[in-house]
Amino acid sequence: MMKYKVAVIRVVTIEDEEKRSVHGRLIEKYVPEIETTSYSIPDQYSGVYDDETHAIAEKKVVELGIKLEKDFDGIIVSCAGDPGVEKLQAILRKPVVGAGHSLAMLAHNTGKKIGVLGIREEAPDALLSSLGDKISISKKIKNVNNTIELNTKAGEKNAVITAMEIEKEGVGVILLACTGMATTGISTKIKENIFIPVIDPVLAESLVMYSMLRLK
Amino acid sequence: MMKYKVAVIRVVTIEDEEKRSVHGRLIEKYVPEIETTSYSIPDQYSGVYDDETHAIAEKKVVELGIKLEKDFDGIIVSCAGDPGVEKLQAILRKPVVGAGHSLAMLAHNTGKKIGVLGIREEAPDALLSSLGDKISISKKIKNVNNTIELNTKAGEKNAVITAMEIEKEGVGVILLACTGMATTGISTKIKENIFIPVIDPVLAESLVMYSMLRLK
Repeated sequence: MMKYKVAVIRVVTIEDEEKRSVHGRLIEKYVPEIETTSYSIPDQYSGVYDDETHAIAEKKVVELGIKLEKDFDGIIVSCAGDPGVEKLQAILRKPVVGAGHSLAMLAHNTGKKIGVLGIREEAPDALLSSLGDKISISKKIKNVNNTIELNTKAGEKNAVITAMEIEKEGVGVILLACTGMATTGISTKIKENIFIPVIDPVLAESLVMYSMLRLK
Repeated sequence: MMKYKVAVIRVVTIEDEEKRSVHGRLIEKYVPEIETTSYSIPDQYSGVYDDETHAIAEKKVVELGIKLEKDFDGIIVSCAGDPGVEKLQAILRKPVVGAGHSLAMLAHNTGKKIGVLGIREEAPDALLSSLGDKISISKKIKNVNNTIELNTKAGEKNAVITAMEIEKEGVGVILLACTGMATTGISTKIKENIFIPVIDPVLAESLVMYSMLRLK
């Protein structure tokens, strides 16, 4: 099988190749037609968790994306905040997909009221700008402020509890607005405890990238 | 291979089963994991081409969709106007996908300025509501007023000419906003004559349905 070659940009610096490639391996599992290589932006060990870290990451993602274009069929920016995604889409000729846009696209198509679970109080702009008032509630996971704190036993427990609180508000679908939740199986734990559909950001970006690659 | 069972609703009455199934066969070609059965709404031989025919079709699509849900994994309303799609999404528990939303979702993700080619002067609401000012030009195919007139030699020629006019306006992608263009290979003819990406509505709905089915 000829596979699509996709670069995965992580917006947190991870030096260990195996750890850096966790999203990439998930993407390959979800869409076997895709083969990934994973890259980190430099010098950003706590990832993206506020406006400042988003802005800093954005520049690094754009620089990296421009360098990677020639060697890949597409680029996934594996973060629900989509830093650099729109800028890269405007510059590059190949598909550029972010988790935020992907969640928004798929959620929009459910036609349901949307709940957002993330690591910031507000839903990411990438979701707000296209979903607007379709988002009826957005919650930050209790006591979790970045992707590092998310990946702990306490982080996992609080993610499930906060997801259950969102479900009680009567939404029809929950978006996991931080790709960190896909990495450690928190996404699976949430799905086990929630009755309504839960959209995982890494699954979303995998499916949307596959669609964009198939469009040609 | 276990296939997803998808009902395809045509918003034009086609009594001949083979002709009615043309979109379904294309969907199966684009996504071999999907197996389709095609249905027409009754008593609407010229399809959907203005507000009145849209409103009439909407009721019929909703009635038909409700009846079909139990036998299928998902429902595609194969029309860029998406008649009944949002209403069905609100009622049903299975994925409901329209060509209009699908075009919008994929176009949004290209990040490019969008041109729309259709059989009405205005782009369909299903596109306008989510793409808004990202659509920089929308054109009606010259001398074509419905899907029947589209499927003629003259219709095909005018579709290509109008698409070339849209390309000259400097857009980055063209959406084919009538599924009738997929049926007869007009879509292929347009792609042969245009340099920028052209998004086919039946391909778009196929890919988006596949994504929605995979989300679970």
